Amino acid sequence: MIRIGITHGDINGVGYEIILKAFEAEEMLDICTPVIYGSPKAAAYHRKAINSPTNFVVRESINDVADKCLNMINCFGEEELKIEYGIVTQEAEQAALTALDRALEDLSVGKIDVLVCAPFSFTTSAEGYTQTEYIQKKVAEDKRPLTIMMAGTLRIAFVTDNLPISKVSAAITKDNFIERMITLQNTLKRDFYLDNPRIAVLALNPKDKENEFTGTEEREIIKPAMEELFNHGVRCFGPYPADYIFGDENYKRFDAIMAMYHDQGITPFRTLEQGEGVNYVAGLPIIVTTPSHGASYEIAGKGEASEVSFRHAIYAAIDALRNRRRYDSSHAHTLKKQFFEKRDDSDKLKLDQDTEDVTL
Amino acid sequence: MIRIGITHGDINGVGYEIILKAFEAEEMLDICTPVIYGSPKAAAYHRKAINSPTNFVVRESINDVADKCLNMINCFGEEELKIEYGIVTQEAEQAALTALDRALEDLSVGKIDVLVCAPFSFTTSAEGYTQTEYIQKKVAEDKRPLTIMMAGTLRIAFVTDNLPISKVSAAITKDNFIERMITLQNTLKRDFYLDNPRIAVLALNPKDKENEFTGTEEREIIKPAMEELFNHGVRCFGPYPADYIFGDENYKRFDAIMAMYHDQGITPFRTLEQGEGVNYVAGLPIIVTTPSHGASYEIAGKGEASEVSFRHAIYAAIDALRNRRRYDSSHAHTLKKQFFEKRDDSDKLKLDQDTEDVTL
Repeated sequence: MIRIGITHGDINGVGYEIILKAFEAEEMLDICTPVIYGSPKAAAYHRKAINSPTNFVVRESINDVADKCLNMINCFGEEELKIEYGIVTQEAEQAALTALDRALEDLSVGKIDVLVCAPFSFTTSAEGYTQTEYIQKKVAEDKRPLTIMMAGTLRIAFVTDNLPISKVSAAITKDNFIERMITLQNTLKRDFYLDNPRIAVLALNPKDKENEFTGTEEREIIKPAMEELFNHGVRCFGPYPADYIFGDENYKRFDAIMAMYHDQGITPFRTLEQGEGVNYVAGLPIIVTTPSHGASYEIAGKGEASEVSFRHAIYAAIDALRNRRRYDSSHAHTLKKQFFEKRDDSDKLKLDQDTEDVTL
Repeated sequence: MIRIGITHGDINGVGYEIILKAFEAEEMLDICTPVIYGSPKAAAYHRKAINSPTNFVVRESINDVADKCLNMINCFGEEELKIEYGIVTQEAEQAALTALDRALEDLSVGKIDVLVCAPFSFTTSAEGYTQTEYIQKKVAEDKRPLTIMMAGTLRIAFVTDNLPISKVSAAITKDNFIERMITLQNTLKRDFYLDNPRIAVLALNPKDKENEFTGTEEREIIKPAMEELFNHGVRCFGPYPADYIFGDENYKRFDAIMAMYHDQGITPFRTLEQGEGVNYVAGLPIIVTTPSHGASYEIAGKGEASEVSFRHAIYAAIDALRNRRRYDSSHAHTLKKQFFEKRDDSDKLKLDQDTEDVTL
């Protein structure tokens, strides 16, 4: 059974509510063994507030965990956590990190298989990390994570993150673009098991009345980089105006979309996701997903939060683990492709071709 | 009966197809008297190509037009127009302008009431106008038109047009923003008859993990300008992250959205419009609408074009004319609001308050 580590996120937000609601359906225990990293007392407090019927079993460590029940590892001993609905506090941030650290520890030694994080945002920490950056620093200092926002078969990744608009153009470099495209391509193949994924690249600039891009980045940076990628087996198409891709459902013709900047990708994503959005953290050795919504302070403790997005985050993590295992086993011990030179009947093998993941 | 001038647009595109399809339903003649400005020969050619049952009556001038039929004013005499499906030609551009000029002439003397333009884009002209810019130069040299993209109650206007991303930030100035907001507000009141419209302003920049905008424009330009507008009666709210407005259907809480730049507004618009989009040209003395799609060269002459967007452009023009008449008549000859000073029973009138349109 796949063991899913679940971190409780911000105890002042909707974390426990969506966890408890997601496991109201007992069928969930047939597809995974959930292990919450959190505080039984905080969980009980939330459980009472939203009047949830979901039961959990408290464990002292991962070694006590059992299948067919909702396990909760107590990361806080006898400590009482102060819950203040809808408020950003240092205590809640610390509680989120304590649980996350404990889960990452068990994940690093293979005691859990994947990680699903309830939402929380660093707001008081001096370091100003996002949850993703924090995880990356803990598990793979040298890797750059790539968030893929997904809902159904809609998958959107980003060349730049949440930069001010005035700094976007300068951040669209060939190296950055190629690196993110390769992470996306490799993730689509390994974690989504898409054999030959099609990626639509969005243009940075709108077109003018002569149907040419108004800026130079497409011509000078994006198109040459795409050509290079294409020649290395990345089936990328475009650059397309964003409104072309999201109008008339053209995004459905592609396995993923690479957006150039935050609003360009997030705005249509939110328009389409219908409360089912998941953030898939690609580019790390571990599998991590989170619901694409935040801690939703404004409805914390009211019982109004929807667990749908969180449940999809669980499904996405399970799917990714299965895909990755399947991909790895089918690519383990493979011979390199053997190309015979037909013309001269010499039975000469060409062993210089590689079918591995793309690297440039 | 409201007389609608209809220009044939690009004869190599889907213009005639959507016009003929829109008037297949005879009920359309109950709500308006349509007057096509075009070429009967070109129309007949298209009619045959798509096998349309729609009949039209050729007129030599606007003075011969009759109600209850589809009138076509012949703008080309015996001239044959060469139709080349899906190709941009100087001849087609000239034909579009000839029809547009003739329609604007009749509109300027009140022989038609509103203008609905079939799509065409200037692609060969040295001046590089858009259709909207061309119309503006003809009818109101001193006004600045504002395109409102609309579909149902979704209405999106733009502070900047199709600039390259690298130039967007510099183009967001207080003057420009205020001018466009006022045009939008006045249009919502007069042409959409919304008594006290609510306008959502989108932020230029995304937020960071501390929930602050990553750029300075919101603090330094947009918010102070909004405060000034609000104090002059413009009910504007925000600035909101675009994904907040388009996620969870929050845009439905507002009568219009002011986007900062092209992709930010067009992308969610196209995602939502479902082939019903209309471009409403605000800020001019005349009423002009066009379908929000282009000349659709790739399907020209194939009979595959949908007329829905064009039909909505007709409805929008009719609605706007009725609203404008109603607004103008209810605001004509009004006394200024009479505020009595209750406290001193002096029956003193306060005549210094104005209820007119916003000007700053």
